[in-house]
Amino acid sequence: MPRRMDAGATGFAADFAAFLAEDRDNGVDVMGVVRDVLSRVRDEGDAAVLDYTRKFDRVSLTAETMRVTAAEVDAAFAACGADEIAALEVAAARIESFHRRQLPDGFSYTDPEGVELGLRWSAVEAVGLYVPGGLAAYPSSVLMNAMPAKVAGVPRIVMTVPTPDGVLNPLVLAAAKLAGVTEIYRLGGAQAVGALAYGTQTIRPVDKIVGPGNAYVAEAKRQVFGTVGIDSIAGPSEILVVADRDNDPDWIAADLLSQAEHSDDAQSVLITDDADFADAAAAAVERQLAVLPRGAIARQSWEKYGAIITVPALDDAVPLVDQIAPEHLELAVADPEALSAKIRNAGAIFLGRHTPEAVGDYVAGPNHVLPTSRTARFSSGLGVLDFMKRSTLIRCDAASLGRIGPAAVTLAVAEGLDAHARSVAIRLGNGG
Amino acid sequence: MPRRMDAGATGFAADFAAFLAEDRDNGVDVMGVVRDVLSRVRDEGDAAVLDYTRKFDRVSLTAETMRVTAAEVDAAFAACGADEIAALEVAAARIESFHRRQLPDGFSYTDPEGVELGLRWSAVEAVGLYVPGGLAAYPSSVLMNAMPAKVAGVPRIVMTVPTPDGVLNPLVLAAAKLAGVTEIYRLGGAQAVGALAYGTQTIRPVDKIVGPGNAYVAEAKRQVFGTVGIDSIAGPSEILVVADRDNDPDWIAADLLSQAEHSDDAQSVLITDDADFADAAAAAVERQLAVLPRGAIARQSWEKYGAIITVPALDDAVPLVDQIAPEHLELAVADPEALSAKIRNAGAIFLGRHTPEAVGDYVAGPNHVLPTSRTARFSSGLGVLDFMKRSTLIRCDAASLGRIGPAAVTLAVAEGLDAHARSVAIRLGNGG
Repeated sequence: MPRRMDAGATGFAADFAAFLAEDRDNGVDVMGVVRDVLSRVRDEGDAAVLDYTRKFDRVSLTAETMRVTAAEVDAAFAACGADEIAALEVAAARIESFHRRQLPDGFSYTDPEGVELGLRWSAVEAVGLYVPGGLAAYPSSVLMNAMPAKVAGVPRIVMTVPTPDGVLNPLVLAAAKLAGVTEIYRLGGAQAVGALAYGTQTIRPVDKIVGPGNAYVAEAKRQVFGTVGIDSIAGPSEILVVADRDNDPDWIAADLLSQAEHSDDAQSVLITDDADFADAAAAAVERQLAVLPRGAIARQSWEKYGAIITVPALDDAVPLVDQIAPEHLELAVADPEALSAKIRNAGAIFLGRHTPEAVGDYVAGPNHVLPTSRTARFSSGLGVLDFMKRSTLIRCDAASLGRIGPAAVTLAVAEGLDAHARSVAIRLGNGG
Repeated sequence: MPRRMDAGATGFAADFAAFLAEDRDNGVDVMGVVRDVLSRVRDEGDAAVLDYTRKFDRVSLTAETMRVTAAEVDAAFAACGADEIAALEVAAARIESFHRRQLPDGFSYTDPEGVELGLRWSAVEAVGLYVPGGLAAYPSSVLMNAMPAKVAGVPRIVMTVPTPDGVLNPLVLAAAKLAGVTEIYRLGGAQAVGALAYGTQTIRPVDKIVGPGNAYVAEAKRQVFGTVGIDSIAGPSEILVVADRDNDPDWIAADLLSQAEHSDDAQSVLITDDADFADAAAAAVERQLAVLPRGAIARQSWEKYGAIITVPALDDAVPLVDQIAPEHLELAVADPEALSAKIRNAGAIFLGRHTPEAVGDYVAGPNHVLPTSRTARFSSGLGVLDFMKRSTLIRCDAASLGRIGPAAVTLAVAEGLDAHARSVAIRLGNGG
């Protein structure tokens, strides 16, 4: 059974604080290994990448065959089931449509002092997309990572995907085709991240790397950060469901388990204002666990990290939600908009009784790459802006510099930066 | 003399690549020290923070006196020169005005399938602003870091500033007052970062930490990343000036030196289409170096990292600019807008002959916290969006879930995630 907490009970504050402080990151220390791999890839390029691929993925490639050809992508696409392609197309179109609305506007204006000011957005030139291979090869993740880059206008989208023992999921290639990926390489692990960041004889370097991966990939992204940009490092998945008594306990149990099945360190939390409903949902979870294909994993997650919290009234859930800052928040209540308006911290919010979180994982349109481990307090899900950057623009003429320049000179002198002051003053005719 | 390169000469490509690859980061390894400081602050709170402050800043404080009172801030404000306060007020008003234009709009709409979709921006709840003390105590940095947070609507802006030997620059406090800082503590170093990230008995933790600092502060920010958000880690300052022959060499030299005076690892680069102008600018730099108060620092930067590159025509500068991806780009040419439109990578662009970079450091309005070390390829200067985050919203009803749900079920099954599929299917009436 997962832990039960009652927000009305004595000692709740301390229990809840301990719950928040719990670390689900059972990361292994792979820093040294990754440093060696990256350094060899940087020095030797293709040779190192091919060697590591032979060793870790048991596949012999050449500089030529490591790239997946357009013909291979087309063949994979043709090999997929028609239903699956149709579903991917629905997802791709809906993701594209939602993300197009995120395209930002720059601005430019002349202010009262005659200074022309502006802000301009531009797409990153080249992006690398890491896609896990083997068991965790998710075509939905290809769409969610590549479509925002495509919408942003990134001209070059490079995907790497390992092919352990030569196996490559055709749906992953189909998703890449739909999402506008421009190059694909059969590479994985820290060596793929190194190839994307530093470039090799065959692979030109990119400017930013995104996408999920195992501990080695996450550490490699951390280590190349600065040379290239990276997205956030994702932790285990989470769902927080706020539900009143008027829900079907089976529906809510299914939602809790849809995150618990991800991994044994995933976290599912239910907050409800009805203790009887809490019992009914807990019982429904037990019934469903017994028949779920990934029930063993889901049970570990539920028993170790799951929680059911009862609150006196639904509004009492708000401060708890903001402190948990969940990746996924379901509001299965009568007036979800009213409750949602009070909440500050959540990656994605699923409103009402007919919006299971899983619909957002695949086809709703918003991104499923979302902030985990309480980071929704300060960060956002992946979006178009993550593949763009801003330049600011300033233009003075002699008259407008005459108006604002003296204040700059005063501050530069106050800070002891005389060359700064002089570069303004010389144009005001009193510093040459 | 700085290096000279000619884009028309044989071997230029290799020379330029080597120039780009040069690492100006002479960082010391402070990882272990910082880890110990953070861990003690986390465990002991106030006691550790006060102890480190005694040791590193030679100041004895208590939990009470470490906070700067409103009366102390007002007294500092009153002690500043009227000119300086007036200049700070000009700067604060202009920064606020430019940043207000960055406030983002969310959106919400119902799509053709009847799904309600939305995106909502909200401010981070609490931000920590690290301000260096002593020599590098820059009131302009206080404005540039705090004003975007204020404009974003951050309710709690906490500043820490060390007071080595008890010294605190009154202009820094005056800037904090103008910028809407809500709490100030006399703390610095890794211990201040730890106090902001983990909280102590006296200081409530924040959600994001921004602001410049020495190697210890930068490493502390790296280590607390994840617990809190951080801004980018700034490298040494840079300027790239593209100038034609019709400039006064003294003006351009002054601009090159305005960055070189920052530190001996700063970098100033001139690109010009006229070799005679290159010589004239180089000579002007030498003349000004001889009389500059910070001439010794500026000379080291200029001779070690400075460069003058001649190009056949101004348009040939564009690919070089994009590869350098400068923090500051000055376009001192006849038609700067035309040249600017061709450039993808630059933190801030200063257009025309009357826009010295230093005017942007203080009063123009755009932020002076900008991406360094080629990171303008994938990142942006500090702005309002850095103090906000997005939540996405999805609402289905039975009918709209009926339309998009089946594709989600297909993809979940294809990915082997049956609990995901089930949470949708159960609501479609075929999964219970």
